[in-house]
Amino acid sequence: MTRLAILDLVREELDMVEDLMRAKLREAFPPVAQALEGLITRGGKRLRPAITILASKFHACDVQVVLPIAAAAEALHTATLIHDDVIDGALLRRGLPTLNAVWSHGATVLAGDYLFAQAADLAAETENPRVIRIFSRTLMTICDGELRQLFSSLDWRQPKEEYYRRIFAKTASLFQAAAETGAIISGAPEEYVQALSAYGYNFGMAFQIVDDILDFVGDEAVMGKPAGSDLRQGTVTLPVFYFLQEDARAPELERILEHARANGGDRLEEAVALIRDSDAIRLAQEEARDFIARAREALKTLPDVPAREVLADLADFVVERGW
Amino acid sequence: MTRLAILDLVREELDMVEDLMRAKLREAFPPVAQALEGLITRGGKRLRPAITILASKFHACDVQVVLPIAAAAEALHTATLIHDDVIDGALLRRGLPTLNAVWSHGATVLAGDYLFAQAADLAAETENPRVIRIFSRTLMTICDGELRQLFSSLDWRQPKEEYYRRIFAKTASLFQAAAETGAIISGAPEEYVQALSAYGYNFGMAFQIVDDILDFVGDEAVMGKPAGSDLRQGTVTLPVFYFLQEDARAPELERILEHARANGGDRLEEAVALIRDSDAIRLAQEEARDFIARAREALKTLPDVPAREVLADLADFVVERGW
Repeated sequence: MTRLAILDLVREELDMVEDLMRAKLREAFPPVAQALEGLITRGGKRLRPAITILASKFHACDVQVVLPIAAAAEALHTATLIHDDVIDGALLRRGLPTLNAVWSHGATVLAGDYLFAQAADLAAETENPRVIRIFSRTLMTICDGELRQLFSSLDWRQPKEEYYRRIFAKTASLFQAAAETGAIISGAPEEYVQALSAYGYNFGMAFQIVDDILDFVGDEAVMGKPAGSDLRQGTVTLPVFYFLQEDARAPELERILEHARANGGDRLEEAVALIRDSDAIRLAQEEARDFIARAREALKTLPDVPAREVLADLADFVVERGW
Repeated sequence: MTRLAILDLVREELDMVEDLMRAKLREAFPPVAQALEGLITRGGKRLRPAITILASKFHACDVQVVLPIAAAAEALHTATLIHDDVIDGALLRRGLPTLNAVWSHGATVLAGDYLFAQAADLAAETENPRVIRIFSRTLMTICDGELRQLFSSLDWRQPKEEYYRRIFAKTASLFQAAAETGAIISGAPEEYVQALSAYGYNFGMAFQIVDDILDFVGDEAVMGKPAGSDLRQGTVTLPVFYFLQEDARAPELERILEHARANGGDRLEEAVALIRDSDAIRLAQEEARDFIARAREALKTLPDVPAREVLADLADFVVERGW
């Protein structure tokens, strides 16, 4: 995993989450266990389990109670990445070959299914009906978001609300669930649960907006994909909406997008270049900062324990990571 | 749905299960809701929810408590069919176009994921930790079985135990869970739960063996696929094991299978013809009957309510349906 210094407070617990995920994989058919362990080991900053663990720190509780639902969030996230890659035909992720680059298409779909099942089983281990329900609803919401994204490909006329709905579904819902379930499982009072839920929601919205901005302006070497990949795949993100709404060259972008929609994506390079160098990027950045401000605001009602500062720092890190 | 007269006792409840599944789909993104509703409406005998409902009838309980877990079993079953079809590239099921015949590959994978999520959410609705856990374990077991099947393609040297393990995982586990969860949710005493669990297990094992036999000897028009489809796709089933074990022409079959394994499936027609007309079919049938006898035996310890006779009739129906 990528070790983020901000998360040192929960380093030990994050290592325990990783151990739990590994132990769980030992139940799997050996070649599948090996492949999934590879994916889990190499990947990610563990933001979701970190948020779950941090959210559990506002009320005294046994860490063992928190680990399964923290691991469930990470397993679910990894499962969605496997299916995303198989759907996009992506051959690399974080600079390493994806599962579908090595395995057949069918085996990859099933391996993703298996990890979804493990995530559900980890959630079920909590034996907490409210936590399990939040988890199963989140699973539905994420799939719904992915489907909406696929079905709205290059639909630049969709209302901006559809964008918020999609990024909530595919990203913010899981951050919200991660924070909320951490608080619930710790036995924290309901107002803490609600505050942490609001934190997770706003954090997640900002996280996805930043991702969508970085897709235009991020360093291609760091991203491991060419600028504007989202739009090239048909996904209309916040900078596109701002450009269409605010930029004098909006009619030009409309023509390009309409052409791409009708004829395949052959002029999308031009669209990406237009947006990249426009004020739309700054407007989207401001909006991400607004979400982060709301995430920090939600923390204010919580007691001043060390986890609170880490959550605040994490929010700042996410929104400033790329610019 | 295909109305089976044997199931008239629970017809009303099965209609309620279907209504619940439809209501649940109304939460989905409209094009997805419509497509999934089409799949659910046209399909199947509803054996899994029927078994759940019948298993709940050995102890007085409110039917409303049973419906979500009954619907969860059917939703899970349908989700696995969607992913099976996308993996096999099947264009027809029950004589009608599959989802992947109409939709993109990616949309089909996601629609299956969405239905998995709905199944998990229906299970979570029970708020019964034991039931939810059985359900999530079953989800893992099914995916594990599918993966094992894919990875053992044309491996005719695998031990016969691997076959039992696979058919338990991909089929019998869900029948067992359907029976067990129905009994648990009704509040029946533990010995009833165990008896119904044994019924579901043995029923499910017989069900898959019969399916594997019909794949060789069933009416191609009724099956909607050519004889020997399983073997052509690399799946080694019970008649193959019996042939290799008992038939004097076993070395001939071994040569054909080894050739197919090394060179693709070009001589598998001959393998199918050999097995079709051999005693291996009768031996497999006998084994299916043995499992059914054990399923019926398990029912004997239960009180003599009408549901018990229906479960016994259902067992006979399943094993005699094709010959």
